[in-house]
Amino acid sequence: MPPMLPLIEYDHASPEVRAVYDDIMATRQTDWINNFWKAIANDPATLERVWSQVKAVMGPGEIAPLVKEMIYVAVSVTNNCEYCIRSHSAAARKKGMTDAQFGELMAVIALANQTNRLANGYQIPVDDVFR
Amino acid sequence: MPPMLPLIEYDHASPEVRAVYDDIMATRQTDWINNFWKAIANDPATLERVWSQVKAVMGPGEIAPLVKEMIYVAVSVTNNCEYCIRSHSAAARKKGMTDAQFGELMAVIALANQTNRLANGYQIPVDDVFR
Amino acid sequence: MPPMLPLIEYDHASPEVRAVYDDIMATRQTDWINNFWKAIANDPATLERVWSQVKAVMGPGEIAPLVKEMIYVAVSVTNNCEYCIRSHSAAARKKGMTDAQFGELMAVIALANQTNRLANGYQIPVDDVFR
Amino acid sequence: MPPMLPLIEYDHASPEVRAVYDDIMATRQTDWINNFWKAIANDPATLERVWSQVKAVMGPGEIAPLVKEMIYVAVSVTNNCEYCIRSHSAAARKKGMTDAQFGELMAVIALANQTNRLANGYQIPVDDVFR
Amino acid sequence: MPPMLPLIEYDHASPEVRAVYDDIMATRQTDWINNFWKAIANDPATLERVWSQVKAVMGPGEIAPLVKEMIYVAVSVTNNCEYCIRSHSAAARKKGMTDAQFGELMAVIALANQTNRLANGYQIPVDDVFR
Amino acid sequence: MPPMLPLIEYDHASPEVRAVYDDIMATRQTDWINNFWKAIANDPATLERVWSQVKAVMGPGEIAPLVKEMIYVAVSVTNNCEYCIRSHSAAARKKGMTDAQFGELMAVIALANQTNRLANGYQIPVDDVFR
Repeated sequence: MPPMLPLIEYDHASPEVRAVYDDIMATRQTDWINNFWKAIANDPATLERVWSQVKAVMGPGEIAPLVKEMIYVAVSVTNNCEYCIRSHSAAARKKGMTDAQFGELMAVIALANQTNRLANGYQIPVDDVFR
Repeated sequence: MPPMLPLIEYDHASPEVRAVYDDIMATRQTDWINNFWKAIANDPATLERVWSQVKAVMGPGEIAPLVKEMIYVAVSVTNNCEYCIRSHSAAARKKGMTDAQFGELMAVIALANQTNRLANGYQIPVDDVFR
Repeated sequence: MPPMLPLIEYDHASPEVRAVYDDIMATRQTDWINNFWKAIANDPATLERVWSQVKAVMGPGEIAPLVKEMIYVAVSVTNNCEYCIRSHSAAARKKGMTDAQFGELMAVIALANQTNRLANGYQIPVDDVFR
Repeated sequence: MPPMLPLIEYDHASPEVRAVYDDIMATRQTDWINNFWKAIANDPATLERVWSQVKAVMGPGEIAPLVKEMIYVAVSVTNNCEYCIRSHSAAARKKGMTDAQFGELMAVIALANQTNRLANGYQIPVDDVFR
Repeated sequence: MPPMLPLIEYDHASPEVRAVYDDIMATRQTDWINNFWKAIANDPATLERVWSQVKAVMGPGEIAPLVKEMIYVAVSVTNNCEYCIRSHSAAARKKGMTDAQFGELMAVIALANQTNRLANGYQIPVDDVFR
Repeated sequence: MPPMLPLIEYDHASPEVRAVYDDIMATRQTDWINNFWKAIANDPATLERVWSQVKAVMGPGEIAPLVKEMIYVAVSVTNNCEYCIRSHSAAARKKGMTDAQFGELMAVIALANQTNRLANGYQIPVDDVFR
């Protein structure tokens, strides 16, 4: 099905949108823009804000970029966002995630979703030592 | 508030529950059991199943144990499970997570929850290259 | 912490709210009103609508009332709604749920939350036979 | 769209995966394997763990198997997992769920999701009697 | 993929279902029924209850109808319900929502989903003044 | 229970954190900082990014500030984030939300959460006209 608003292709983008697209491609060392950015480019202020966050948060820091992508996938699987599952799994693979790591990632996500509900369902009080 | 069923203390546990408690303490090299296990011990079959999964999934493998705890926290924050946020953040700290890493972890989780909704809201089609 | 709006006690309720309270007590054969109704009574139209639904949906039908309460608990645990977990678990117990059934209920909820994420994460296509 | 990893067909499965497939077919008295297992078979340890749980939890016990499938559907609808909604609705039908029961199941799920948010939104304190 | 039960077309509907369809068309001043109603018409009691709620809640009141549609979209995006995102965005557009408003709506939804997780993750205590 | 990291009070804040606090107070025309900012100030980069977003998104634009706060509450109630429900309900009240509007807001949120699950559960195909 089509997106809610038309995707904004580079050739039809305003200068401010193009500037963000250029920065995305330069930062990622690629020559294409994925649909996420083309969709939110309908609202240039959102495009700029979200890209500046992604650039700042997902780059190198105290947590390795591959690990950050796995965390991203964990959130996206829990929320069942297909676009994000597929795009961030692809990003994780590009950063080195193996099939075996993908399998373990899924196992941890599944386990956490399970025990979250046991903690909810039994209404388990937090141990003093965890406070 | 109290849990839904009384916590099962070691001294009042059945032999099968004690066997699991002993394995938890031996595996974790600690001398206490946190409330999660004491609550689900009301259903010994669940206790045994969940512990055997945690033991198998959260140990060393293709993904480092500290990273697995961060993934666990990411799921728990997304689902808003206080018990799991606090217990797995404590586990992550024990495995070396710094305050700065906790901050980055939160930033990635927050960003992913944000972009998940932009992808949903704009109904963005998955790029062919991600399939 | 206090509710967002004051609980409406029977003695201070308007005639239209009292009429709903009376019907709740008569239907449930009790002489008290739980906080859920006292809170939403701040909006009498919502009170009336929600009660008429609960009365129609949760009573005898094609699914036994105890089973309906278990389904209610399953949704509430998945959404982590403490009020609803506690109130509908109490309702289920009143209708005969045993500790062993509570344990199995939690186990099914936990399992489903786990496999939901495996299905999401692996992006598993629906088998033709399930369509 | 394709799954994240290729589905593992019986003829190309390793002996350990085949052993699980054989047990699934024997337990369910069928001669085919649905896509869920073929997908997670990419990680044989997860396949074994999840199947052993499903086998233990979903069989006869204190709650009837049909009721367990309804609970499974309730969780899956709340989480919006299409695969699980369709596969467990099919399982429930196989165990006898009628159209009228499906309708009531949906009505209970919908009602619970509604009142969960009223309880959240009004921040309703739990009645002492429910503790 | 097909719905779980066949859509009930007007010509094949029972008199009680037709009466609801007629009221929907009269209230909305349209001559067609969208799939949501045709699907839940399989359970006429649910059809009647849900329509009577939609009619009562979504009409003019203390909050403008366009604002109500935006709130509906916010919930639907957060829950990732494609049907509801598309149908209520269409309803909002019919009531005057512009592309720029859609963009701001998405931005608010995304921001709230982000800060919800920061509040969860940091386990931030509610300020006294907000109680 | 305490937050995961100590709240950063103004007097003990670094100059960069103080600068954000000053901008929050100036923008909101208040002389205090709520706990949300004091908690995320443990990660000054996140503090700065989140505040700049809140400032840009929640101010006047194509959607009225009061409506934006209601949308914020709708997301927060759906996600069950107590901190955000209370803080943004307070913000909405400050911008003029009445008790009657709060009641309608809750009714719309509850209705949407209900119909989202009916759409999921019946697996209703999107009408061509909504695409």
